[in-house]
Amino acid sequence: MFSFEVKAKDTNSRARVGRMITGHGVIDTPVFMPVGTHATVKALSPEDLESSGTDVILANAYHLYLRPGHKLIGELGGLHRFMAWKGSILTDSGGFQIYSLSPLRNIDPNGVTFRSHLDGSLHYLTPELAIEVQETLGVDIIMCLDECTPYPADRSYTRKSAILTGEWAKACKISHRKEGQALFGIVQGGMYEDLRRESALEISQIDFDGYAIGGLSVGESKEMLLEMAHSALVVLPEDRPRYIMGVGTPQDILCCVEMGVDMFDCVLPTRNARNGTLITSEGKIVIKNARYADDNRPLDPECECYTCRNFSRAYLRHLFMAKEILVYRLNTIHNVSFYIQLMRKIRDSIHNDSFVQFKMESLGKMNLNGGD
Amino acid sequence: MFSFEVKAKDTNSRARVGRMITGHGVIDTPVFMPVGTHATVKALSPEDLESSGTDVILANAYHLYLRPGHKLIGELGGLHRFMAWKGSILTDSGGFQIYSLSPLRNIDPNGVTFRSHLDGSLHYLTPELAIEVQETLGVDIIMCLDECTPYPADRSYTRKSAILTGEWAKACKISHRKEGQALFGIVQGGMYEDLRRESALEISQIDFDGYAIGGLSVGESKEMLLEMAHSALVVLPEDRPRYIMGVGTPQDILCCVEMGVDMFDCVLPTRNARNGTLITSEGKIVIKNARYADDNRPLDPECECYTCRNFSRAYLRHLFMAKEILVYRLNTIHNVSFYIQLMRKIRDSIHNDSFVQFKMESLGKMNLNGGD
Repeated sequence: MFSFEVKAKDTNSRARVGRMITGHGVIDTPVFMPVGTHATVKALSPEDLESSGTDVILANAYHLYLRPGHKLIGELGGLHRFMAWKGSILTDSGGFQIYSLSPLRNIDPNGVTFRSHLDGSLHYLTPELAIEVQETLGVDIIMCLDECTPYPADRSYTRKSAILTGEWAKACKISHRKEGQALFGIVQGGMYEDLRRESALEISQIDFDGYAIGGLSVGESKEMLLEMAHSALVVLPEDRPRYIMGVGTPQDILCCVEMGVDMFDCVLPTRNARNGTLITSEGKIVIKNARYADDNRPLDPECECYTCRNFSRAYLRHLFMAKEILVYRLNTIHNVSFYIQLMRKIRDSIHNDSFVQFKMESLGKMNLNGGD
Repeated sequence: MFSFEVKAKDTNSRARVGRMITGHGVIDTPVFMPVGTHATVKALSPEDLESSGTDVILANAYHLYLRPGHKLIGELGGLHRFMAWKGSILTDSGGFQIYSLSPLRNIDPNGVTFRSHLDGSLHYLTPELAIEVQETLGVDIIMCLDECTPYPADRSYTRKSAILTGEWAKACKISHRKEGQALFGIVQGGMYEDLRRESALEISQIDFDGYAIGGLSVGESKEMLLEMAHSALVVLPEDRPRYIMGVGTPQDILCCVEMGVDMFDCVLPTRNARNGTLITSEGKIVIKNARYADDNRPLDPECECYTCRNFSRAYLRHLFMAKEILVYRLNTIHNVSFYIQLMRKIRDSIHNDSFVQFKMESLGKMNLNGGD
């Protein structure tokens, strides 16, 4: 079961509000998906995710294939049951992880040979196996296997790589037979505008439930990221969700929503939380800084999360200095809630046809009060 | 505000049910107090503690004096506000921590000089300062400063040490002026029955709100622990709560309740949880064992905690192998809930006048199904 409908459009930008329906509920877009690599959003329980307002999380087919194994998870009732998460799940196929984690990466027309980053064992991932793994996990949205083009890469390599991703997209589409799961295609094309457009055109010709833009946020400049996203977005069909993978900061998200992106995922809010970097409506807070030692205010007076309702900056700093486990959870609850609340405000502003104003104000606030 | 009343007695043992009332609620005894050394029960939030049925936690005056400082916590509104815990708090005074953690320990009649285990700084703790620290923290039950006698120690040293603890108890009693906080005395006497009895007699002559037995669970045998506890318990007044510090395993708790102990604290359930050792009604589970990889059952089918209601052993094992932060919390929720549920069953059995039977059955179960 999967549907998507555009519900409202901003008249001054390409921003739009949409509604996705999966077998595990309703997802209002633009949406942020917290990253739950190993079948857990680091430091959070499913209850914490629900409380934060999260509707959909991203898990990782690559990681779960290696440990504990997709077949085991399938036998135990699927990924939702395994991690006790009642909302929707999207899995990344593994293309990006093989690019970023494996010490070996031999690509041939039919698949990719890689070594496990855990034990060095050899594996061969094909488009067909990527689909099988994600079908077995039983998630709501599955991603095609792509080649995440290295950065930097020359034009000739990038072109070949995008063509291969196109071939694999066709193979994924053919091999995906299981009902009830959406399948998204992925646009590549490196840092070349015309290759991005070509890839978007080619992938759009396959009838996917949604379209993703991959291979960005890999080291390029912000300007380059937005340029490449734009090249693909103008081509992708209006009536399908558009997902920009691995993006990003609140600033990036605001800029991408303006160009018509519906879905985001990023490790930033969760990883930063564990490092003690908190994002607030008044700027960044590095909680270990001595100035917070006696600061009895919540992290963000505008935030309604469990952390901000109950704990002071002084307490969070104390826990962080004492390396107490609780702080990783409290910080993560806040950062994830900040992102989820930001997306809600973005949707509200689109409904009110005031997105561009909201974006300018938000960016201004974030820049003015740079924080730590 | 503090009161204690014995509500029911077992006719076949000295076990009893009592009710303590503090400024932060009702505590039914026998009670187990999870340990929250640094103003946090490791890996748990106040909500988790409430859900587990915890009424009172133990925090550590020694640790909080060193970091972040009792004065800071006082200025920020006291320990309850600081850690957002609405239930009762008992603080240990620091005697045991100076014994177990400090690289220096020079005792004179008026106090003890020690070095911080954090930064090596020199400190001088007196009975008066111990009271001041705990008064400033604003906790519900404060403990006298004692000398935790080293183990092993000869009779002459132990005797002098117990006498010093007695002197300090008087000094604590005199210097505790703040209303609304209970003050407990501590019995010492090492591993000598007659010295335990003498110390209990001396401490009982001071009108404390409750009486603790300290200096046990320091390396002696189970038999010795029970013998020493017994020597003190027969002397301590019937109408006051009796607290055995740092004890212990479910087996120890059952044996001590039988002798009339009302209060317990121990790091075992929380520390074991983080090490992946879970305690269940069917014995111990070492979650990393391969046999749990595909085990879809909850940790303990008899347990009603969040972990057992939602997650399988297979999932917990997966999280543990992947070193995912969530597992420390889920494991701790279970182990603490197990202890809290055990205490509830103990109280029920005393009300039903079937404690001894309950104890035998529980010990039998734990021994028969030794688990991992």
